[in-house]
Amino acid sequence: MRDSRIAPQQLEGRMRLEVVIMAAGKGTRMKSARPKVLHPLAGRPLLQHVLAMGAGLGADRLITITGHGAEQVETAMRAALPEAPLAFVRQEPQLGTGHAVQQAVPELADHGTTLILNGDVPLVRAETARALVAACAGERLALLTVELADPSGYGRIVRDVDHRERVLAIVEHKDASPAQRAISEGYTGMMAVPTAHLKRWLAALRNDNAQGEYYLTDIVAMAAADGVPVVAALATSETEVLGVNSPLQLSELERRFQRQQAEALMEAGVRLMDPARFDLRGTLKAGRDVAIDVNCVFEGSVELGDEVQIGANCVIRNARIAAGAVIHPFTHMDGEAAGVEVGAGSLIGPFARLRPGAKLGREVHIGNFVEVKNSTLADGAKANHLAYLGDATVGERVNYGAGSITANYDGANKHRTTIEADVHVGSNCVLVAPVTLGAGATIGGGSTITKNVDAGALAIGRGKQVALAGWKRPAKQKKA
Amino acid sequence: MRDSRIAPQQLEGRMRLEVVIMAAGKGTRMKSARPKVLHPLAGRPLLQHVLAMGAGLGADRLITITGHGAEQVETAMRAALPEAPLAFVRQEPQLGTGHAVQQAVPELADHGTTLILNGDVPLVRAETARALVAACAGERLALLTVELADPSGYGRIVRDVDHRERVLAIVEHKDASPAQRAISEGYTGMMAVPTAHLKRWLAALRNDNAQGEYYLTDIVAMAAADGVPVVAALATSETEVLGVNSPLQLSELERRFQRQQAEALMEAGVRLMDPARFDLRGTLKAGRDVAIDVNCVFEGSVELGDEVQIGANCVIRNARIAAGAVIHPFTHMDGEAAGVEVGAGSLIGPFARLRPGAKLGREVHIGNFVEVKNSTLADGAKANHLAYLGDATVGERVNYGAGSITANYDGANKHRTTIEADVHVGSNCVLVAPVTLGAGATIGGGSTITKNVDAGALAIGRGKQVALAGWKRPAKQKKA
Amino acid sequence: MRDSRIAPQQLEGRMRLEVVIMAAGKGTRMKSARPKVLHPLAGRPLLQHVLAMGAGLGADRLITITGHGAEQVETAMRAALPEAPLAFVRQEPQLGTGHAVQQAVPELADHGTTLILNGDVPLVRAETARALVAACAGERLALLTVELADPSGYGRIVRDVDHRERVLAIVEHKDASPAQRAISEGYTGMMAVPTAHLKRWLAALRNDNAQGEYYLTDIVAMAAADGVPVVAALATSETEVLGVNSPLQLSELERRFQRQQAEALMEAGVRLMDPARFDLRGTLKAGRDVAIDVNCVFEGSVELGDEVQIGANCVIRNARIAAGAVIHPFTHMDGEAAGVEVGAGSLIGPFARLRPGAKLGREVHIGNFVEVKNSTLADGAKANHLAYLGDATVGERVNYGAGSITANYDGANKHRTTIEADVHVGSNCVLVAPVTLGAGATIGGGSTITKNVDAGALAIGRGKQVALAGWKRPAKQKKA
Repeated sequence: MRDSRIAPQQLEGRMRLEVVIMAAGKGTRMKSARPKVLHPLAGRPLLQHVLAMGAGLGADRLITITGHGAEQVETAMRAALPEAPLAFVRQEPQLGTGHAVQQAVPELADHGTTLILNGDVPLVRAETARALVAACAGERLALLTVELADPSGYGRIVRDVDHRERVLAIVEHKDASPAQRAISEGYTGMMAVPTAHLKRWLAALRNDNAQGEYYLTDIVAMAAADGVPVVAALATSETEVLGVNSPLQLSELERRFQRQQAEALMEAGVRLMDPARFDLRGTLKAGRDVAIDVNCVFEGSVELGDEVQIGANCVIRNARIAAGAVIHPFTHMDGEAAGVEVGAGSLIGPFARLRPGAKLGREVHIGNFVEVKNSTLADGAKANHLAYLGDATVGERVNYGAGSITANYDGANKHRTTIEADVHVGSNCVLVAPVTLGAGATIGGGSTITKNVDAGALAIGRGKQVALAGWKRPAKQKKA
Repeated sequence: MRDSRIAPQQLEGRMRLEVVIMAAGKGTRMKSARPKVLHPLAGRPLLQHVLAMGAGLGADRLITITGHGAEQVETAMRAALPEAPLAFVRQEPQLGTGHAVQQAVPELADHGTTLILNGDVPLVRAETARALVAACAGERLALLTVELADPSGYGRIVRDVDHRERVLAIVEHKDASPAQRAISEGYTGMMAVPTAHLKRWLAALRNDNAQGEYYLTDIVAMAAADGVPVVAALATSETEVLGVNSPLQLSELERRFQRQQAEALMEAGVRLMDPARFDLRGTLKAGRDVAIDVNCVFEGSVELGDEVQIGANCVIRNARIAAGAVIHPFTHMDGEAAGVEVGAGSLIGPFARLRPGAKLGREVHIGNFVEVKNSTLADGAKANHLAYLGDATVGERVNYGAGSITANYDGANKHRTTIEADVHVGSNCVLVAPVTLGAGATIGGGSTITKNVDAGALAIGRGKQVALAGWKRPAKQKKA
Repeated sequence: MRDSRIAPQQLEGRMRLEVVIMAAGKGTRMKSARPKVLHPLAGRPLLQHVLAMGAGLGADRLITITGHGAEQVETAMRAALPEAPLAFVRQEPQLGTGHAVQQAVPELADHGTTLILNGDVPLVRAETARALVAACAGERLALLTVELADPSGYGRIVRDVDHRERVLAIVEHKDASPAQRAISEGYTGMMAVPTAHLKRWLAALRNDNAQGEYYLTDIVAMAAADGVPVVAALATSETEVLGVNSPLQLSELERRFQRQQAEALMEAGVRLMDPARFDLRGTLKAGRDVAIDVNCVFEGSVELGDEVQIGANCVIRNARIAAGAVIHPFTHMDGEAAGVEVGAGSLIGPFARLRPGAKLGREVHIGNFVEVKNSTLADGAKANHLAYLGDATVGERVNYGAGSITANYDGANKHRTTIEADVHVGSNCVLVAPVTLGAGATIGGGSTITKNVDAGALAIGRGKQVALAGWKRPAKQKKA
């Protein structure tokens, strides 16, 4: 199952870096049919966070060790990161962390550095990974460690008292003396290793322990025996080394990550009414003096221009909103692949829905219970109440009446509606596409329009009003 | 005011258990016209939580001592728990906790165990109550106690230093020595007592104290004097013994309970995007790989099949949603008594509302600003935009156009609309019920349909389009 | 830039009080084009909170020292507090806190007390300000201090060990001894000073320090040298003396303030399902037994009568809702200046929008996807589904059908629609204003009504239904 498309090769001028990511575990506590590393954090699979970070390091290869759901993992990651130098190897059966990394050996070069990460530890920062690789420097065994408020359960980092930069051992919690248990520095499971050493040490691993597994951490003793220095690089916070083993842990990490994102945005000047009620699953690029009210969700790629205001309870995905636009509460935008664009100074919502291909010019108004899909609205166009605009081209200053609908689907095909500038469409009209309303035309309320309307004309298509005096309304029937 | 319908009787083979629940207090700090024990926690009155737990223990009788709002309390509880062996006694006037329990004496058998609970302490777990009854074992006075981070104000449990399982006294905070104040174990107000002893001790209570009240806790000294062992059973957490005396306390307990429910669901594999923004007021049964986005509220009885996704900001009550259905943000379902059913693979919302009797087949699509009430939609039917379906039977693959309405109400009676399979209803149509659209019929946009349409026919009911060239639109009037 | 409209004058019978508010800072960390003190907390600019509190003290003048964005600040505050005795002075350039207050000297009387506050410290309570002024008593230098969990960075208050009410010095954090750093009482930057002393001391300030600035706190040593007692008044909590320097701090203060408001409402008997998901930006007056579900936002002036229920996710601004009304989830009301009124027992929502001038009588029903603007609805009127009522007068018991629209706008002017009592408007009707429907009239579904309808008449305006048997629907076109 190796990926032969990307051949190992040495880059000139800098040390080769390969990243090995352990992602074979089942994640039983997730109680899910989905492989654990594919569960999303902030909208992206756990493993994708790790791979994207590794790609950002400029790694020569990103070798993922898969097991449970291997094909699903591989397919998802190739689709998510088509440009990254991905490779995948299988670990079957799963005989420990050392055994996992052994599977990657045929993929590794004979020189350079191997960075070993975990596919279920999604938030390791690139700066931390770089510091770890730097600590390795191609010749030392560098362990990623972390200061822990409560280190229970973690392997403790025993440093040399005379040479604090040197690590003597990782002592498992259960084997630790009281003094060792008081150590607050724990091992995170991640390390950077000179690749040539790693290959030799992995080959020497033994499984003569209670579990019959091969432990990666056994290479620490081998390094000591070989006189290879063992050093530690500290993570900057606990958050970046937390793993996910259950939906509860996933939710906790999600909230930590959302909090980090919220703080970064506020640091950049965005005003959030409640950082605890803010979700970003993707990227948000915000101009100056952007204000975001409570309980909004942003997904995919969203851009907000200067002074954009987002009201409470909006859900916005793949959209660009230009300067000064005001998005009222309960607005839903989902641009999917085609995107949504909102022009400068536009007013949208409340209860508006913009769907893929909705492209609004400047100072467009889209009001309550209005849906726009695959339509362009030129500057100053308005659809303020209960309306549907699909597959339409709407000119400047058009007023599109309450309850009016573009009948763009004849049951088999979609057709376009063209509404030229300054048209006034009355209430509860149906515009049966394909149809064109010429510039400045007026459509009487309640009309069904099936034929083109000339510029400047008044078009009406409705029944004549008749009245029947003294009409008797139906009486309430008795229930049988 | 005794309930004579349920006669005390001894069950064979196990000890009789009666539960007495103190629920007479006014709850002045609630500042409410409603009796305190009827205020809801997670959608159910405080007292109902206690009674439901008691019923779950298999208690022979659940005797509630009422006072303020007694009739309202009794009526509400009989309606909520029609099968439970409820009895009610009045405490008027209210002369203390001992006096309260005295009112229940005529209802109690002469043997077995009496479990005394509080109607404003809603979250006592059945396991804890069973442990308390077991500690009593029909012959000891068993007090429910709790370890407190801050025991200020609580009566402290003084245990026998040589026999830690024995309680020597409950010492009120104000009477406690410094050493006693350091005790972190507090009395919760709940106990289990051999009924025969209880009756004798209650009869001996005196009110010769500053408040002139009869205190239930005085029976501890009586037990000691009688040589009846006094023991304690510890609650597992503070949450389950917290009482409600104010809206603030109620909100705090609500959040603790919601957090517990959220964690239990996550433990079972449900993925919650934010457990702090999740509310369940009733029961939620979830299949595998269910994901629930932020800020959703579930009420009544809700079932979610495997892989169901619930978008942000949904409110869902009394609904069954089958496997693979995707519920987009801002969807409101309220099945009330009739229920709502969503078939497998259906797509609902955003901004959809499903009302009682909405029964959707497989892969039904209900889109934005669409309301469905008392209607069945067969597999593959679609109503994607701004529409109303009420009292309708909709066949397979029907496409129900944007803005179309079933006119099911003639001002006096409701009538049904039948839309057979493969019908295509255009935009902004009115279907005046009773009416039937035959299989495969097509309804032109903007039509008002008052007569049945044959299968396969095209029906149109709208005015002819006419145009007036060079029409002059009204000019803006000057304000007077 | 002085305000000459309000001349200093001494009130008889009580000591003159002038408030000086420092508001000249740029607030670089806000990363905003807006002056820092104009950033809103709970919907009102930071400075407005301070000025409103000062006005509530009965201050004779409120003198704001402006700098960055001075004109914008002045304009905004004059508009927000037209009745308050506002004055504004400019500080340009900005040479320290002492220099700031020096600018106010020409505005100050020669007697009485000057209270010095910060424009970016919005939550100082009136009680605290009064206590500070009382501590000054027109003859002492009174410093506002606070007990701090973590006083790092604050100037420490060194009190006289023998006379604890006397302050010896404020010692800056960087200059403090270890013993002084252990002091948990910090200086808040606010003080009350006898005005005559203040003028003299300000004149004597020097800027011979590293920063070349004039420090207001230097007057403490001057007071000591003059034998004027220096005293301290403690703020009741850290929250009221917290300043805002960044969007993060602003969000934290917003949440603290919202929490305070939520607790005050609960204390008064309002039931909040989640106080952490409650936002009030203005005033909320609530009757007895009001319940507010999660994630609601209230703005402007809102009144809720007894037993009003507000569902989840509502946004309500400038509205009065009478007793017993039930507001379902996802309801948006915005009364702006005209206000929204909801009568007793009305049912509103879900997904309803009430706009300015919506005035609903008793037991009115407004259902999903319905918009009401500048319209009165008499008792018992109903508009339950997908409808628009704008500029309409609706009589008692009117039933306004699904999908019906008042066409109130002819492209140039707005006109009124009058619907008299007991009218039944069918589905998908258009009422072209100006038009009157007489009492008890019935409008057939799908009608466009352009002429008045007599009382009791049945009016219909729609095409006749015709059918074409065996019609062949368009076939799916092949893509080119």
